[in-house]
Amino acid sequence: MKATFLIHCPDQPGIISTVTSYIQNKGGNIVYLDQHVDKEAEVFFMRLEGEFLTTLKANSNIEDDFEKEIAVPYAMEWSVHYGDKKPRMALFVSKYNHCLYDLLIRYSSGELDVDIPFIISNHDDLRYIADQFKIPFHHIPVTKELKSKAEEEQLRLLKQSSVDFIVLARYMQIVTSRLIAEYPNKIINIHHSFLPAFAGAKPYHAAFNRGVKIIGATSHYVTEELDAGPIIEQDTTRVSHVHKVRDFIEKGRDLEKLVLSRAVHLHVNRKTMVYNNKTVIFT
Amino acid sequence: MKATFLIHCPDQPGIISTVTSYIQNKGGNIVYLDQHVDKEAEVFFMRLEGEFLTTLKANSNIEDDFEKEIAVPYAMEWSVHYGDKKPRMALFVSKYNHCLYDLLIRYSSGELDVDIPFIISNHDDLRYIADQFKIPFHHIPVTKELKSKAEEEQLRLLKQSSVDFIVLARYMQIVTSRLIAEYPNKIINIHHSFLPAFAGAKPYHAAFNRGVKIIGATSHYVTEELDAGPIIEQDTTRVSHVHKVRDFIEKGRDLEKLVLSRAVHLHVNRKTMVYNNKTVIFT
Amino acid sequence: MKATFLIHCPDQPGIISTVTSYIQNKGGNIVYLDQHVDKEAEVFFMRLEGEFLTTLKANSNIEDDFEKEIAVPYAMEWSVHYGDKKPRMALFVSKYNHCLYDLLIRYSSGELDVDIPFIISNHDDLRYIADQFKIPFHHIPVTKELKSKAEEEQLRLLKQSSVDFIVLARYMQIVTSRLIAEYPNKIINIHHSFLPAFAGAKPYHAAFNRGVKIIGATSHYVTEELDAGPIIEQDTTRVSHVHKVRDFIEKGRDLEKLVLSRAVHLHVNRKTMVYNNKTVIFT
Amino acid sequence: MKATFLIHCPDQPGIISTVTSYIQNKGGNIVYLDQHVDKEAEVFFMRLEGEFLTTLKANSNIEDDFEKEIAVPYAMEWSVHYGDKKPRMALFVSKYNHCLYDLLIRYSSGELDVDIPFIISNHDDLRYIADQFKIPFHHIPVTKELKSKAEEEQLRLLKQSSVDFIVLARYMQIVTSRLIAEYPNKIINIHHSFLPAFAGAKPYHAAFNRGVKIIGATSHYVTEELDAGPIIEQDTTRVSHVHKVRDFIEKGRDLEKLVLSRAVHLHVNRKTMVYNNKTVIFT
Repeated sequence: MKATFLIHCPDQPGIISTVTSYIQNKGGNIVYLDQHVDKEAEVFFMRLEGEFLTTLKANSNIEDDFEKEIAVPYAMEWSVHYGDKKPRMALFVSKYNHCLYDLLIRYSSGELDVDIPFIISNHDDLRYIADQFKIPFHHIPVTKELKSKAEEEQLRLLKQSSVDFIVLARYMQIVTSRLIAEYPNKIINIHHSFLPAFAGAKPYHAAFNRGVKIIGATSHYVTEELDAGPIIEQDTTRVSHVHKVRDFIEKGRDLEKLVLSRAVHLHVNRKTMVYNNKTVIFT
Repeated sequence: MKATFLIHCPDQPGIISTVTSYIQNKGGNIVYLDQHVDKEAEVFFMRLEGEFLTTLKANSNIEDDFEKEIAVPYAMEWSVHYGDKKPRMALFVSKYNHCLYDLLIRYSSGELDVDIPFIISNHDDLRYIADQFKIPFHHIPVTKELKSKAEEEQLRLLKQSSVDFIVLARYMQIVTSRLIAEYPNKIINIHHSFLPAFAGAKPYHAAFNRGVKIIGATSHYVTEELDAGPIIEQDTTRVSHVHKVRDFIEKGRDLEKLVLSRAVHLHVNRKTMVYNNKTVIFT
Repeated sequence: MKATFLIHCPDQPGIISTVTSYIQNKGGNIVYLDQHVDKEAEVFFMRLEGEFLTTLKANSNIEDDFEKEIAVPYAMEWSVHYGDKKPRMALFVSKYNHCLYDLLIRYSSGELDVDIPFIISNHDDLRYIADQFKIPFHHIPVTKELKSKAEEEQLRLLKQSSVDFIVLARYMQIVTSRLIAEYPNKIINIHHSFLPAFAGAKPYHAAFNRGVKIIGATSHYVTEELDAGPIIEQDTTRVSHVHKVRDFIEKGRDLEKLVLSRAVHLHVNRKTMVYNNKTVIFT
Repeated sequence: MKATFLIHCPDQPGIISTVTSYIQNKGGNIVYLDQHVDKEAEVFFMRLEGEFLTTLKANSNIEDDFEKEIAVPYAMEWSVHYGDKKPRMALFVSKYNHCLYDLLIRYSSGELDVDIPFIISNHDDLRYIADQFKIPFHHIPVTKELKSKAEEEQLRLLKQSSVDFIVLARYMQIVTSRLIAEYPNKIINIHHSFLPAFAGAKPYHAAFNRGVKIIGATSHYVTEELDAGPIIEQDTTRVSHVHKVRDFIEKGRDLEKLVLSRAVHLHVNRKTMVYNNKTVIFT
């Protein structure tokens, strides 16, 4: 069985050999190791995939032992993810269907190895797509009055289905502080601009008015500050004076789909770590 | 001889056939025509290249006639550029040599078809490059006290050499309002970010701190508002968590050179028109 | 009503003014004009969009007149396309669903302004997608024995539904000479390599074995010679030693979708002209 | 002092922990580690940078010990490179100056941390650039008759100056088998196409005739088979029907410079390993 370790701790000599020796002693064969040192912050990051011949969890207290023998002495924050457990992903959408379609097709073809317990939307418009792919769809309207009731209902569904992370696939509502607090670095948004340019509403209109020659899309983890969370992935495409705002929107859809799907892939494959509002993205 | 017409005017039916018939009647063969209509502003733009068998300027009052017969009735702003006259380009630099080297190599290889009467710098550091390429180099220091004297000297040199346009090849001074007024849409700057993100000082540091996954460079015409003029060309390149600020700077140098040289090419080949702080870039 | 003219003819002076004057005299306002001269072949190409206030076809013999007055004297090949008639597109698929899904979503959202009378497949696997989008699906098996019968059936369906052009959305059969002859420059294929590299079967495996750092996809019109027709659109993406063949395939899917959809858009919007096995692509 | 280890060997469990423990025991702090397993070939690759507090070479027989204790048991091929020794790079050129200029500017600005003992050319045309940068220039004509004499002279100069690797910066001669044998995976070429498309002579003409929409450049290690060696780096740029062959050449120059300079950087920084005619490129 495969186990993926994500580690960060204050940098000091010897971490790699200590961890790799530990894994080997536990019967693990390291099939992937990548590390990074943030010289300014003096923080060490590592992603390590081990192949364990015996059933890791049954035969050993590997997690407890790792915590005691390695993590505590090195002051590590760490997590381990087992290959036999699919991450559970909730989708939040509004009225635009392109990102939803894109993720569901990747899911149904097996490219995206997750479970999708449900889709939540503040509108009922996209229920037909959920039906096409046989995913439960919950219409939870969000208005000023209903905001806290909606949050309650969202949280209830998320907890009930043991959701691991949330993807805002062009969800046109600001998620609540409580949701962010419950899912720190576990809510992935797609913003339709090359952040930090054109944060906020109507970025394609703003880009058009500025006369840029390139537009972009940005996927990031959601934090309290709007469109200011740790960036996971970005991409850009060329535009010119012949393109109107509606061309920006059309070209942007393709960017949004690609950038969001790449970010979701990276998250699902445990290739992302967050530190100081920035991401380390392993290859 | 080749003559390139650049035209813009309020949109109305019949402009293209009127202009093309006029050119043909004057003995011109149209070898290139591109047009654009800004639907919002209701403005028509056209770029037209004509090949004239007879010597255009000698045999006719084409400019006067065009003004009277075409430009006035259609309320056009227009200009014509003859293929036998090289644009005269002044270079302003400070201490970074990469854009200067890049432009001078394109110039000396004949790729960039301009005259370069001189290079102006607020430092003496890059004189050796001017010497390598045998271009006059004027060291004009700019300090708070010397600012207006420097401006005088710059303007004197520009006028004396009949400079057509100015390229700020990483010139680390803000050019004066008077210079901008004398050379409207004729001063080309390179800014080392993907504008409008990270305008102002130290954009690579700002990009690094924000944790972006892509950096950019932008070439634009200089206007009164800093880094806010009409964008001519932009490009981007990928970065990741492994790159430090000095890697951003190194990767950025290659972007800056490319983007600035493309913008200069576009300007030299009369492929740019400015309207409402945006550019139309003909192909 | 909008009418789009596509013209090519031997190059000579005066074509643009003649054509634009003609359009204007017929009451048309030219809203777009782009032209190109192939200097080597001495051929002139033009794409012109005219807005006609009166109903063009009812009030005049514009097509007959154009043929007599303009096309014959200039030895033009030309076509005109009216904005009130949607092109009719047939889709051919096999087992891969990504290009099919991509095109159908663009169709159902209104982005792709065509009629889709049916989908033909040599397998029955993707019928469920046709059902999702309520498009008729014809399963026409192709084996050595059934090849000519399949061709008959394909042609019958195409004629019956007045299909204008065909998109091979990862159709894993070689289309017959007769089909190509019936739809010259009207069959669009997507090949999963950066042509002319890796023509033929299993291009991702070949690219992997060669150790390339970039893979590509190419959309082209189908001609008798396999993967050698006029290229409409290409794009590329980076790979590295960490990517296995199945990663090439996965990354390639996103490329294929984008490149094919762009090619289809260009064709639908009458932005392509073919000459000497190459394309002119208008902007 | 920094020491960079490059290792490859048959894959087996325990390599990483063995090597990292060894480095640590020798007083080294691992500041970078990247590894790759080629699953098909069952080969393990590793690049490791260690910071050694004491002077590594003086205080220990680290190389001998590593060979005995680690390399032999694991059947490794390996090399170590010390940070205090600059690689010595010879440049071979012909008549095109853009790659030569590009590399010399990167060298003179300190971006490219190498020694350049000399430039060899089969023509005398570019001597002036060597003079600008004060690098010795050897004009060694190559004709059918002079071929073996030229090879002798090239080898003599290379040996005399202890050259580590050779860059063919648009050198328009096929290098001899003997030279290739003396510098295996140490001769870097730039080919002006997206290999394997358009190998051999006049690739831009071939690309133009095929009507491609994207052109490329490829940097690779030179092997006996022309343009078929392990690819280090590639990049591409868009072209269209408006571009003539001379535009392909002009756009290509910028690609060639960038791709070659990136490949040289990768080689200089010991980021490349070659196996089965493919490269592993560490980040």
